[in-house]
Amino acid sequence: MKAKEQIKSLKAYKPGKPIEEVKKELGLETITKLASNENPFGCADAVKDAVMDELERVSIYPDGYAAEIRTKLSEYLGVKPGQILFGNGSDEVIEMFCRTYLSPESNTIMATPTFPQYKHNSIIEGAEIIEVPLLDNGKHDLDQMYQAIDDHTKIIWLCSPNNPTGTYITEKELVSFLKKVPSDIIVACDEAYREYVVAEDYPDTVELQKEYTNLIIFRTFSKAFGLASLRIGYGVAHEDLMGVVDPVREPFNTSRVAQRAAITALEHLEFIETCRVKNREGMASYESFCKQFNLDYFPSQGNFILIDFKTIQGDEIFDYLLRKGFIVRSGNALGYLTSVRITVGSQDQNDSIINCLSEWLVQKGVTKNVATSINE
Amino acid sequence: MKAKEQIKSLKAYKPGKPIEEVKKELGLETITKLASNENPFGCADAVKDAVMDELERVSIYPDGYAAEIRTKLSEYLGVKPGQILFGNGSDEVIEMFCRTYLSPESNTIMATPTFPQYKHNSIIEGAEIIEVPLLDNGKHDLDQMYQAIDDHTKIIWLCSPNNPTGTYITEKELVSFLKKVPSDIIVACDEAYREYVVAEDYPDTVELQKEYTNLIIFRTFSKAFGLASLRIGYGVAHEDLMGVVDPVREPFNTSRVAQRAAITALEHLEFIETCRVKNREGMASYESFCKQFNLDYFPSQGNFILIDFKTIQGDEIFDYLLRKGFIVRSGNALGYLTSVRITVGSQDQNDSIINCLSEWLVQKGVTKNVATSINE
Repeated sequence: MKAKEQIKSLKAYKPGKPIEEVKKELGLETITKLASNENPFGCADAVKDAVMDELERVSIYPDGYAAEIRTKLSEYLGVKPGQILFGNGSDEVIEMFCRTYLSPESNTIMATPTFPQYKHNSIIEGAEIIEVPLLDNGKHDLDQMYQAIDDHTKIIWLCSPNNPTGTYITEKELVSFLKKVPSDIIVACDEAYREYVVAEDYPDTVELQKEYTNLIIFRTFSKAFGLASLRIGYGVAHEDLMGVVDPVREPFNTSRVAQRAAITALEHLEFIETCRVKNREGMASYESFCKQFNLDYFPSQGNFILIDFKTIQGDEIFDYLLRKGFIVRSGNALGYLTSVRITVGSQDQNDSIINCLSEWLVQKGVTKNVATSINE
Repeated sequence: MKAKEQIKSLKAYKPGKPIEEVKKELGLETITKLASNENPFGCADAVKDAVMDELERVSIYPDGYAAEIRTKLSEYLGVKPGQILFGNGSDEVIEMFCRTYLSPESNTIMATPTFPQYKHNSIIEGAEIIEVPLLDNGKHDLDQMYQAIDDHTKIIWLCSPNNPTGTYITEKELVSFLKKVPSDIIVACDEAYREYVVAEDYPDTVELQKEYTNLIIFRTFSKAFGLASLRIGYGVAHEDLMGVVDPVREPFNTSRVAQRAAITALEHLEFIETCRVKNREGMASYESFCKQFNLDYFPSQGNFILIDFKTIQGDEIFDYLLRKGFIVRSGNALGYLTSVRITVGSQDQNDSIINCLSEWLVQKGVTKNVATSINE
């Protein structure tokens, strides 16, 4: 019963304490989770009715080809139906690409820190992993990533906006990178947070893909669309490339309810618009808070912000917030020891956690910048 | 952009015509699908309400560890929580075991014909595939499968009841096999249809697993539990073995609604009992039909029956039935050229398709056995 060598290096999952247990232990009435970049506003109202209707066919396998959502999404994106690959979350799309292209003879290049599933799947395939540290401004070091390319490179991963920094790659930067990278190396651009982006120089990758056929794009219904619990994401690539990867897909990999929910979500894009606006309002509150206390942060185009508390360890901030009823992501696990990553929540949630942090910082004697105020 | 060599041998998926289109073309009002071994009775009534309730948290990621359904299922099975691995359907559990253990240096042994996902995933991992034809009685040739073992063998797949024959491996046969197989080779027993089984000598594999730690078991909520559309299945194995495979799992591989539906399904086992009884009644109708027309069939413990029409090609039967509004699985694709596999439906569905086939056979001059009648 010998597993592949590389599997042994994967960390076994250690289940955390259930929230109910934490509540009891700490005597908390509610816990607000701002740790997983989930949409605090749920999803478009119509999704629930659509899913209900779909439950009439609960014992019937989904359409593995996902024809209906495929047609809908291809029209939305302006691509051919055959250019899309659906997955059980974009996690599975990442997995399918790794299963298709990576092997112990190949290498793959990614930033660090970034979304962990590129590395996870690359390890399973036994590929050599080349990690290029982010620049000090939290952005991908595209020059170093390009320098790292050799004859064995199969996939280069770009996460934009990057998790956990929220920084993005501009159109100019991406095009300049794509021009240099050999066309037989896949450039995988993960845009899980793209619906939150407001930066004008964020690239239209679907358009760029028409020129750069080695560009593939990952997107998801888990973030702004608010369907994380149902698991559906997708990849967009050249039809020929998708034709190679698609046979790797398990025949019924996306559920009937997820497909239907995604169709309905695309019919209610006004929900996304509202979430994007509210997210920027929330982001402004966090940025004001940071300025008020002279804290560093990466300007984020996602629905989360990585804040550097400088003199305080991320784990200490995490513990403090947990006792106050907030769960965030400690920077310790993300490579930023004195930071925490906070998901932008509803305005109430944002105000509460900011008040809580402000009080604590004042207690700790952290200098407050008198020139700014949280309401500026 | 060179994919792994073995990926190229996978067949690209060709989407079939949507049912609505087929209906229009053939002028049919309804089409009854008895092709995918789905539960014609849906699922336990309570599932729908439970799923509805879960949709309140639609934007929140599922618990990847699936703690609640894990506890529930471990109590139901009488195993430790750590012995269970949930998948996006048992398809994904099969995939995770293949990713963990199979490589181009290994081989894997399976029957033919059997459930196609063992082979599919083994091809992707580049393993050598050793296929051992079923015996004439439709059962696994365990002797030949044992003979095929060599130093590179990693996993032996047993499908019981076997898809598409419905035949099963008795406790005695399985124990005798397990006694011989070296303990470092995984014996994977796929019991997707086990809830339909009424044979008294069907093995209690969960009990056997305590003695044979290389035995792993795959089961699903897609068949008798009627949750095919939601995608949830599981594996049971020794805790140490699961500890090796679990890190391969994508962090959120089963959806929130699937987990909740499975919990609810386990709280309403009377539904399974009813389905099992109705399935046997339906099976008796098909067996009577076969006897009446002297057709061969494999005695099935599943919710489907493979019927050999001897002088007629499976594809011809498929076409005839499609024109009459029934979709079944032609034996041509299953290695039984003159057979079709029919899912046992509701009694109405069974009566309709049997009447339809009976009329056709009489028209074609197939000898009717006067000594038996369909109502015997």
